[in-house]
Amino acid sequence: MRQKAIQLAPELSVSQWFNTAEDLTLAKLRGKVVVIEAFQMLCPGCVAYGLPQVKAVHETFSREQVAVIGLHTVFEHHAAMTPVSLEAFLSEYGISFPVGVDERGTTDIPMTMQAYAMRGMPSLILIDGDGHLRAQYFGQVPDLRLGAEIATLLAEVM
Amino acid sequence: MRQKAIQLAPELSVSQWFNTAEDLTLAKLRGKVVVIEAFQMLCPGCVAYGLPQVKAVHETFSREQVAVIGLHTVFEHHAAMTPVSLEAFLSEYGISFPVGVDERGTTDIPMTMQAYAMRGMPSLILIDGDGHLRAQYFGQVPDLRLGAEIATLLAEVM
Amino acid sequence: MRQKAIQLAPELSVSQWFNTAEDLTLAKLRGKVVVIEAFQMLCPGCVAYGLPQVKAVHETFSREQVAVIGLHTVFEHHAAMTPVSLEAFLSEYGISFPVGVDERGTTDIPMTMQAYAMRGMPSLILIDGDGHLRAQYFGQVPDLRLGAEIATLLAEVM
Amino acid sequence: MRQKAIQLAPELSVSQWFNTAEDLTLAKLRGKVVVIEAFQMLCPGCVAYGLPQVKAVHETFSREQVAVIGLHTVFEHHAAMTPVSLEAFLSEYGISFPVGVDERGTTDIPMTMQAYAMRGMPSLILIDGDGHLRAQYFGQVPDLRLGAEIATLLAEVM
Repeated sequence: MRQKAIQLAPELSVSQWFNTAEDLTLAKLRGKVVVIEAFQMLCPGCVAYGLPQVKAVHETFSREQVAVIGLHTVFEHHAAMTPVSLEAFLSEYGISFPVGVDERGTTDIPMTMQAYAMRGMPSLILIDGDGHLRAQYFGQVPDLRLGAEIATLLAEVM
Repeated sequence: MRQKAIQLAPELSVSQWFNTAEDLTLAKLRGKVVVIEAFQMLCPGCVAYGLPQVKAVHETFSREQVAVIGLHTVFEHHAAMTPVSLEAFLSEYGISFPVGVDERGTTDIPMTMQAYAMRGMPSLILIDGDGHLRAQYFGQVPDLRLGAEIATLLAEVM
Repeated sequence: MRQKAIQLAPELSVSQWFNTAEDLTLAKLRGKVVVIEAFQMLCPGCVAYGLPQVKAVHETFSREQVAVIGLHTVFEHHAAMTPVSLEAFLSEYGISFPVGVDERGTTDIPMTMQAYAMRGMPSLILIDGDGHLRAQYFGQVPDLRLGAEIATLLAEVM
Repeated sequence: MRQKAIQLAPELSVSQWFNTAEDLTLAKLRGKVVVIEAFQMLCPGCVAYGLPQVKAVHETFSREQVAVIGLHTVFEHHAAMTPVSLEAFLSEYGISFPVGVDERGTTDIPMTMQAYAMRGMPSLILIDGDGHLRAQYFGQVPDLRLGAEIATLLAEVM
């Protein structure tokens, strides 16, 4: 994580937001470290470790400094994971940070998933205070390492 | 679990079956110990421990002797947990034993849930080889105890 | 576990007992199912899953019907795992069932370990109410299966 | 963790070292972040979460930048946790970072434990690159938080 990226992280394409009064964009979040958890509500790994991990990030770090965003990135079983089902899922699993629905284009793969070339779910994305993409993971990331990476990005901001 | 019940366990009311070529009834399963896991697909406890436990029961015991049945007992968020969503859930979570959809009547509480007076999900139900209800639990049951209870019922059959 | 053994399980060779007023023998325990956990106090698997499992057995089953016995079977690092160290270990880990020290003979392998040809620690041994050896495991045994095996032996007794 | 301490962390009092060719002192480690795990080998919490956590710290961070040190701080059952037993423990649990034996003075409480006024085991201590004591915990610290705190101290050094 030492070098800085030159390109800004791709902006999010979101068709609907939950848990936020106003629509979010990465542009609005400049100055904060942004942690994005891309998930599908029926993905076992997302439920077992991805979402609990970012819930812990949301509880551990200052919300002035770190923004946690969920992205419901459905690339299969579209009829099974509609926004109606997602809303019940968020309620049942006690997810209180903002969650956007990754916007569907003309294919099964939604637009933000395409823009970031995500390999599958869960995907974890770290964006620094200047809006650069600094890390992107597919699958499980140890808490110890994630905590260190977020703090390293925070130290750059401050 | 020493005494025997006199009444038969209430028959299942199921509007749709998954993972089975023919509809199941408790009457057809006489001679086997029947383990029923009543769950909702968006219930965190069902996903975290209830369903994994009965998957292990399905793997551990002889299928000639122990029948594992899932019952999708939706009593809230009905629009979020339709059979279309359930089918994707069963696929994603690798659930291969038969699962029935608890039949909706005129209220939010489906008919089998009413017949057994279940308190919530997950509920675990044990029925002996003669069709009697022998145990019913709401919440987590230790594996050690569940294994012992199933084996005790099996010993009666044999 | 269907057939019965003809030979009795080898008697325990114990040089010192903890947590019991009188010395135990398998002969004295006829009529009970006996669960023996052979362990070393510095064996990670014994501490992580073997001993917690038999503590749960001790809590779950009637002590009139199931006897849980620990056997401190040291076959390496003898100077590091003396009875003085064992006594502190039992206190710190809250082990309240009887524990015997497997008697050392002329080799590094203590005598009960030899008699049962144990492959290593933890080893779990099940003895039926008639004193026959019915199962012997090296390594981890799932709770569901262990619960079932104990209950099956109990059903024979009753 | 924002303010800096003025006093240096107390130097370690160690009667014997394992896993290191030369004796360590905090003075020699200036420039590195130092993570000290004070433990007793027969302390369940130390074995279950304290030592595994610092093993992960040792694997995760650069050893040029972060020094992990174990401190065997025996304050009870002294005869049960001698250096002979500790050596076998370190081998069985695969602990490869340096471990010092906290020096016993005239009381049951060893000298480094006294100097840091530790409340019990496990205790986790963080020292920055300038040798200042920056955090001291008794009991379990979440990985996410510990990773962040170490990275924050690292960012000060670099």
